[in-house]
Amino acid sequence: VRVLVTGAAGFIGRAVAECLVGEAMIEAVRLVDRTTPPCPDDPRFKACRADLTEPDARLLDGIDTVIHLASIPGGSAEVDPALSRRVNLDAPLALLETLDARAEPSRFVQASSIAVFGAIIDPVDDRTVPEPSLVYGAHKRMVEIALRDFHRRGRVSTIALRLPGIVARPRGNAGLKSAFMSEVFHAARAGEAFVMPVAPTATMWLMSAACVARNLVHAARLPAVGGQAVTLPALRVTAGDLVTALYGHDDAVGYAPDAALQANFGALPPLSVPLAEALGFCHDGTIEDLVRMALR
Amino acid sequence: VRVLVTGAAGFIGRAVAECLVGEAMIEAVRLVDRTTPPCPDDPRFKACRADLTEPDARLLDGIDTVIHLASIPGGSAEVDPALSRRVNLDAPLALLETLDARAEPSRFVQASSIAVFGAIIDPVDDRTVPEPSLVYGAHKRMVEIALRDFHRRGRVSTIALRLPGIVARPRGNAGLKSAFMSEVFHAARAGEAFVMPVAPTATMWLMSAACVARNLVHAARLPAVGGQAVTLPALRVTAGDLVTALYGHDDAVGYAPDAALQANFGALPPLSVPLAEALGFCHDGTIEDLVRMALR
Repeated sequence: VRVLVTGAAGFIGRAVAECLVGEAMIEAVRLVDRTTPPCPDDPRFKACRADLTEPDARLLDGIDTVIHLASIPGGSAEVDPALSRRVNLDAPLALLETLDARAEPSRFVQASSIAVFGAIIDPVDDRTVPEPSLVYGAHKRMVEIALRDFHRRGRVSTIALRLPGIVARPRGNAGLKSAFMSEVFHAARAGEAFVMPVAPTATMWLMSAACVARNLVHAARLPAVGGQAVTLPALRVTAGDLVTALYGHDDAVGYAPDAALQANFGALPPLSVPLAEALGFCHDGTIEDLVRMALR
Repeated sequence: VRVLVTGAAGFIGRAVAECLVGEAMIEAVRLVDRTTPPCPDDPRFKACRADLTEPDARLLDGIDTVIHLASIPGGSAEVDPALSRRVNLDAPLALLETLDARAEPSRFVQASSIAVFGAIIDPVDDRTVPEPSLVYGAHKRMVEIALRDFHRRGRVSTIALRLPGIVARPRGNAGLKSAFMSEVFHAARAGEAFVMPVAPTATMWLMSAACVARNLVHAARLPAVGGQAVTLPALRVTAGDLVTALYGHDDAVGYAPDAALQANFGALPPLSVPLAEALGFCHDGTIEDLVRMALR
């Protein structure tokens, strides 16, 4: 297995690279991003700079598996839909077209997002129909549809994983509206006070970076995929329970709910995804496991 | 109202131009296609050549309403997915981006297709979830999602109409798998014998070119649209009833069902689209009306 990881300098990309180090069946890994990604000390790994908005078929030379993470996040996509189109839509289509033009079979794993569901109000399960409500989710959903069609054509086996909120992202994530979900982890680790912009009863779907990396690598190795878009399982936790798990107490944390953040990121209904679980995808386990993995 | 019609040299485009001639509120119409479209003898109309795969923002100068018909048909799209991407996906996105960059509001009417539903087996209604099964339907569905997002952004009001089988297309339509639906009209008009590649009990969703043109122009004038994709009403007719309506008898017509054509185009279930009807969209009325309009 010879893997290309795009967006490899990013938060999830680094976790994927770390996860791939432990995979004996991987022969080679090419890590790419707009800036040269960090490269594990392992002779199978190479890291280089690549701009996916200027497609270069050589990027895929000798590659049979792509884990495509490169993406413009939701907040930035909303501000610059044209950039989102180039990165979130055109770039994966270009990679898919290159793979589809080859004789050898290949595998394409796409990082999609629960943003394809738009405003999530009712409980989500495997029959929930995606209705994106922002640029980011619309482009992710368009790629899901393209992936299914590429898969059907028979040369590229594809799967899209819809990621929930991933923690703990590095501090200062411009363009990410849900940054507070990660900031509270960093504040707790530093022993700092924190003000949550959602109520203690706010519910979130969370997964650690290490866990989502395991799921992405699992998707790359799954014997049979069907071009499907899979909503990943996630731990549904309340802001109050998360604070308790992080701080041990809740004296250091205040709550100043912001209506928009509360509505978009703090009112996640129950999630039931037996299809993903049957395929072997999983969440972190318990809120304590989530905190431990996210703070590692 | 100043209208751009793309694909105006095509079968439906000519019918749309004819329909626009009768609209007093239309101030100007620009008809474009890869070859210069026929131009009605009306000073409000101009026809010119334009290649939508090489976007030129000047095409939209002075235009406030687009009826976008330009398309690579399903059979050709399947043979050349890269061409389908350029014409069926990139071209409408480029038009939408140009309109979205302007300060003035505009209207975009997209000719979509029942192909977004893929293999249609169960009855279709307003809640049916699109699951395209071919390149053409996948690209049409991707554009529907983009249209909804452009509408939400507030500058371009959009609507997609999902067209059923439109008759009677000109003879010899390369790339159109459903050509037989139209061929039987031409054979009947010429008094020729015909062999239907589906059984007499085969069911089809049909609409005349004049009727779909009326629906497209209606969409361009609708006071409020919501970025939605609307499945148009259609007459559901059997091949046998169609032959009787066309020939008056069925002696001149044989049946030699082809399994693939029968499955894809001759097994259409009941169609119920109250949302479209509530918006004022309509089918031809009766099978006799359909035949009369289609043969006009």
